[in-house]
Amino acid sequence: MPDKHALVLGLDFGTESVRALFVDLDGHEHGWSSSKYKHGQITAKLPGTNISLPPDYALQHPGDWLDSAAKATRSAWRRVGNASARIIGIGVDFTSCTMLPTQADGTPLCLLSEHRANPLAWPKLWKHHAAKTQTDRIDQIASQRKEQFLEQCGGTIGLEWFFPKMLETLDEAPEVYRAAEVWVEAGDWVVWQLTGCQADEMARSTCQAGYKGMWTSRDGFPSKPFLRAVHPELVDVVRRKMPGRMKAPGQVAGKLSQAMAKKLGFPEGIPVSTAIIDAHAGVPGVGAADPGTLVMVCGTSSCHMLNAVEYHRVPGVAGVVKDGILPGMYGYEAGQAAVGDAFDWLRRLTGQKTFAQLGRRARAIPPGADGVLCVDWFNGCRTPLMDGNLRGGFLGLTLRHEPHHLYRALLESSALGLRWIVDLLRERGVPVKKFIATGGLPHRNPLFVQVAADVLGENILIHPSQQGPALGAAILGAVAAGKRAGGFSSVRSAVRTIGGVRKDVNGRGGVLVAPDRHHAKLYEPLYLRYREAAAFVQRQRAVT
Amino acid sequence: MPDKHALVLGLDFGTESVRALFVDLDGHEHGWSSSKYKHGQITAKLPGTNISLPPDYALQHPGDWLDSAAKATRSAWRRVGNASARIIGIGVDFTSCTMLPTQADGTPLCLLSEHRANPLAWPKLWKHHAAKTQTDRIDQIASQRKEQFLEQCGGTIGLEWFFPKMLETLDEAPEVYRAAEVWVEAGDWVVWQLTGCQADEMARSTCQAGYKGMWTSRDGFPSKPFLRAVHPELVDVVRRKMPGRMKAPGQVAGKLSQAMAKKLGFPEGIPVSTAIIDAHAGVPGVGAADPGTLVMVCGTSSCHMLNAVEYHRVPGVAGVVKDGILPGMYGYEAGQAAVGDAFDWLRRLTGQKTFAQLGRRARAIPPGADGVLCVDWFNGCRTPLMDGNLRGGFLGLTLRHEPHHLYRALLESSALGLRWIVDLLRERGVPVKKFIATGGLPHRNPLFVQVAADVLGENILIHPSQQGPALGAAILGAVAAGKRAGGFSSVRSAVRTIGGVRKDVNGRGGVLVAPDRHHAKLYEPLYLRYREAAAFVQRQRAVT
Repeated sequence: MPDKHALVLGLDFGTESVRALFVDLDGHEHGWSSSKYKHGQITAKLPGTNISLPPDYALQHPGDWLDSAAKATRSAWRRVGNASARIIGIGVDFTSCTMLPTQADGTPLCLLSEHRANPLAWPKLWKHHAAKTQTDRIDQIASQRKEQFLEQCGGTIGLEWFFPKMLETLDEAPEVYRAAEVWVEAGDWVVWQLTGCQADEMARSTCQAGYKGMWTSRDGFPSKPFLRAVHPELVDVVRRKMPGRMKAPGQVAGKLSQAMAKKLGFPEGIPVSTAIIDAHAGVPGVGAADPGTLVMVCGTSSCHMLNAVEYHRVPGVAGVVKDGILPGMYGYEAGQAAVGDAFDWLRRLTGQKTFAQLGRRARAIPPGADGVLCVDWFNGCRTPLMDGNLRGGFLGLTLRHEPHHLYRALLESSALGLRWIVDLLRERGVPVKKFIATGGLPHRNPLFVQVAADVLGENILIHPSQQGPALGAAILGAVAAGKRAGGFSSVRSAVRTIGGVRKDVNGRGGVLVAPDRHHAKLYEPLYLRYREAAAFVQRQRAVT
Repeated sequence: MPDKHALVLGLDFGTESVRALFVDLDGHEHGWSSSKYKHGQITAKLPGTNISLPPDYALQHPGDWLDSAAKATRSAWRRVGNASARIIGIGVDFTSCTMLPTQADGTPLCLLSEHRANPLAWPKLWKHHAAKTQTDRIDQIASQRKEQFLEQCGGTIGLEWFFPKMLETLDEAPEVYRAAEVWVEAGDWVVWQLTGCQADEMARSTCQAGYKGMWTSRDGFPSKPFLRAVHPELVDVVRRKMPGRMKAPGQVAGKLSQAMAKKLGFPEGIPVSTAIIDAHAGVPGVGAADPGTLVMVCGTSSCHMLNAVEYHRVPGVAGVVKDGILPGMYGYEAGQAAVGDAFDWLRRLTGQKTFAQLGRRARAIPPGADGVLCVDWFNGCRTPLMDGNLRGGFLGLTLRHEPHHLYRALLESSALGLRWIVDLLRERGVPVKKFIATGGLPHRNPLFVQVAADVLGENILIHPSQQGPALGAAILGAVAAGKRAGGFSSVRSAVRTIGGVRKDVNGRGGVLVAPDRHHAKLYEPLYLRYREAAAFVQRQRAVT
């Protein structure tokens, strides 16, 4: 029996807030809390200034990360209310690629008076989409040179990745690029701050580097000749501005520093795990230790993760990284760039205060949304086309349609886009056998999950924890703690023990959503219409 | 000098209301008023019952027509306030094809207790779109038989026309079809009621019959063999259920009956002109007596009328009728099925109470609506594809788009659709030299006209009268009055004298909207994108 007083802390850094979760080594949640970032997503003006941001900018304030983490941790800890409890490990997950330039001591450039007024000195949030020309350039040169790393990212560089974002700053604000002594993923930066180590000692996550940084376990980051071809000033950036040691999630990054221990309210010296991408943390978080389970982390956007025994080339899949999610397997990552975000956009566009009426009326109409067809690329298409410049649309509209018709069509298009991804994986030989949904959206929006189950014709398990990624981070904290401290010796055993869905987890089992077989049949022709419309949008983009 | 005390009355029967306009023989407006139909457009439930209507139904109440006409006429007459004034002629325009079944004495079947509860016994409004299968059947048989009347209607039968609507009733409610002793256009029915003649004596408008009833001056209505091929029971319908005499607009239909004189508040015996389609009345109404002027009547939908010296086959043009608009010329009619209707739909869809904010913000963004592209077929496509089953859509949408982006895209798509029509006419050899906009929309929505001028790269004159069709009807009333009674001997002279745009008409000249040359250039690539998207929507319809 594991020690009931030994708890692990998972810190889940999302787009709007941090969630802190305490679980014991049997998977029981003992307390959680979340804290919104003071500055939220920065998309209109730089904080404290009148400086307007160009379109497609999305920034964050690095101070928010540590402040909100401390606030959420202290609040969650109060809820634990167990005087004998002790923390044996800490895990961190973070959105990716969210990245920033810092000084050698970790100070973000945006906090310095000389760079404060330059938007390009600020942390770029994953959804910052302004590095379009840079993405195209990197993509083109990588293709010409047939770079090996293309094999693990579906053949295309993503608009949201590390090097395009860095190159954007070099192109647009070379003085910021040059002033940066360190370029770092935000998840690695937070772990660096928690452990208080030197820059050279910081743990860089193989998960973030593999999926968003063109890093491969064989070759490391991109080669000098490639980087020189992209931009002469980039040639030596890896050696000079990207210090640290590559470590896998679950490996010890360091121990909680005195300063951060004080900020969080704990004793110093607690082992801290190397960071993991938030979506990827959902995989251990829902207990998916075996190959063939598609874990869908659905929120603002959706990430779909799957472990498989074999490597298969799947075009447009965001990444296939060996040991990228769990050790010993190939981690496949696919994504849809606008899910909850798009639902919320449509709600606002149609002047609705809440989803109550939209959801009720959308549920009342049959599959097909009375002929309204949506292409869900309102924030570009991640998988399978990996093109951030693609756009969304609605077809089949008539004067009798109302907001709920568009909303149902949007839900359906999210599900049809998901089916495309699943079809693609299977066609390429990657087994997909089980579906688990996690993240906030499946719990808030049961119609969304039902439509997805109907379109796929498959059962979908909604994981009982609304804290999938936070739970995954906590599990990695338990691995970092190690067996001797009461934790685990392997990620797999920690995943099975802590993350598995059982009736007794908080008294709730998972909710199994079964497909309506009649609906599933109706969606077959709709799927073809969706693919045709998507192909047209893609063609039109190629022409213009 | 014409007699200043001699006035003519134009009665303009629209979709929502009747407008009554008094003008003198010099074109000065002396008073007008409008009166909304008590039952409006009947699209949800039959009046006074709980009987729900199927989708695509749009009906009207025949009592509303006469009641609102009397109300508007009496109110406009009070505004004339000239004790010496006398009415020398009455003209009538009406939406088309709005049609109904009646008894031999003119009583609409829908007013009889045995038919009241059957939606198919009610007048079908022009925009009633439920006769889809019937349209397809008539279209197919006409094509197979290479019917001559196809030459004047662009090769395709319209969903809104007379015979599809009649056949729908025969298919769906044969007892109603059989009980009907007369099938009649609503405009002809109103003139019939005004004159109080026998059914055999009623004037059937060559304009309505030519554009909406497959009637040609050479062959009359469709032949018995054709009608038998469509449906055995239709074989003798023209002789048995469509009594009356074909007359051109401006020809005397009869004189105001005692009963209707009492209802309107005038002496009996005033000459009444044969009816004209409301949109077509706009051509004389704006003084367009010469070939080459495209008269755009823009309201709920838009009709574009043009006179030309020569006949050219133009696919998808709703009609080319010899003497159809003005004597001695070929009248071309094209149309866009949803204009003001679509603007209003989008306003409601996006939860806006008025157009104020939408218009202001849409004006502030440049051509192209920030990448949002609309296909404006929210009520099917009239010209050039003549397919009521086509649907509209929005493409190029992202999460940053707001209602005013969609609104601007919608305005632009209306203009791009208009350009397609103009291009088509010119390509086929029909000269288009001048553009005059009339109807309520151009006065209410100046941005709409500006966008159209920019997209066409042409000047557009907004006619000063907001009563273009009513003025046209009044002009036909002056022709029906004849020269001896103080009216005119020819339609052309009446049009030039009464309808011409002059500074002194109500003290206001027309507003000339000139294109912005820079905008015009920006619209060139957008036009190609619009045509591509339209072609895709058309292809997808063909597949599904």
